[in-house]
Amino acid sequence: MASNSLSFQTLQRLPYYLDYLREVETENVSSTSIAAEFRFHEVQVRKDLASVSRLAGQPRKGFATQALIEDIEDILGYGHIDEAVIVGVGHLGTALANYTGFGKYGLKIVAGFDIRIEHADCLNGLPLYPMDRLDPVIREGGIRLGIITVDGAHAQSICDQLVEAGVEAIWNFAPVLLQVPEGVIVQNENMACALAVLSHHLRK
Amino acid sequence: MASNSLSFQTLQRLPYYLDYLREVETENVSSTSIAAEFRFHEVQVRKDLASVSRLAGQPRKGFATQALIEDIEDILGYGHIDEAVIVGVGHLGTALANYTGFGKYGLKIVAGFDIRIEHADCLNGLPLYPMDRLDPVIREGGIRLGIITVDGAHAQSICDQLVEAGVEAIWNFAPVLLQVPEGVIVQNENMACALAVLSHHLRK
Repeated sequence: MASNSLSFQTLQRLPYYLDYLREVETENVSSTSIAAEFRFHEVQVRKDLASVSRLAGQPRKGFATQALIEDIEDILGYGHIDEAVIVGVGHLGTALANYTGFGKYGLKIVAGFDIRIEHADCLNGLPLYPMDRLDPVIREGGIRLGIITVDGAHAQSICDQLVEAGVEAIWNFAPVLLQVPEGVIVQNENMACALAVLSHHLRK
Repeated sequence: MASNSLSFQTLQRLPYYLDYLREVETENVSSTSIAAEFRFHEVQVRKDLASVSRLAGQPRKGFATQALIEDIEDILGYGHIDEAVIVGVGHLGTALANYTGFGKYGLKIVAGFDIRIEHADCLNGLPLYPMDRLDPVIREGGIRLGIITVDGAHAQSICDQLVEAGVEAIWNFAPVLLQVPEGVIVQNENMACALAVLSHHLRK
């Protein structure tokens, strides 16, 4: 499997393919039909599938649907649960912590932290801790994923603390670009960037 | 101004530049210092700024900070308010509706809709309506931006209704790729895609 060389773009398309494949009721599926469903270029779909599947698609027959589903699930790490901590339990942090759909994608939020929390507490079953418990909770739990939902001014300092404690992947909802050492990945969800694109379209 | 030809990538970097420029206390700012701040390539920053600024940066002197701020704000449509409706007032929809930071980016959510709403209602000051009011509210308000926070199964149908009513930009939080006619833009915020990238990194 060439999964180590998967591009960011390919990875982002895999959840869409997976949703589609799970609804297909035929034994085989062609890259043509997937391309048509999403209006992607067929060449792109064929390249994506070649890079994720252990088995090559067959001319005319296409890919075995079930095998392809398993290959993609394997690459996306579904079935395997990633435990995460969330730092910043305001509106957005609470919405994420309450969101029940993450389990389907293999994400489990196991603890929340906030500078406003003074004593261990609980939010709909999620343990909440003061900031000085961040390091021990991450280390003892071997947690590798951190979600940052604090404001922009505090995000880099929180990021540093997460990385120092052993976190290797950061999902950043604060509107700043975080600096991380090599080997750590950051996925930014910046509302301002999304709005910039939409708003510019409306200005045109 | 070449703002019509701005790339998606450039647009996404502008909010970061803007945050930085607002904190700079010097009269002029160089593309070198911006590049250093974000660890971007200097050539990229220089190209970005050339495409957004009415005035060319001067060798050694750089860009006039205040003029650059105004150019970027102008392109991002800050100062001008985009009114939006939100469809789907569950956990995520409520979090977005409650988020007070959007005003800073020129977004105002003016109405919420949900299939579970039977009579006009109110959520922290946001008017809520049943689905059959979607078309008239959008048409009468001349609203051009729609936010979709329903589940994947209903997103395309909601999208069609928004476009039919006159919406030209869609911010989609449902985990599906939406089909829209030419001239309509979709910005996807897909949690599954973000998680795919992070989770794959942890699998490596």
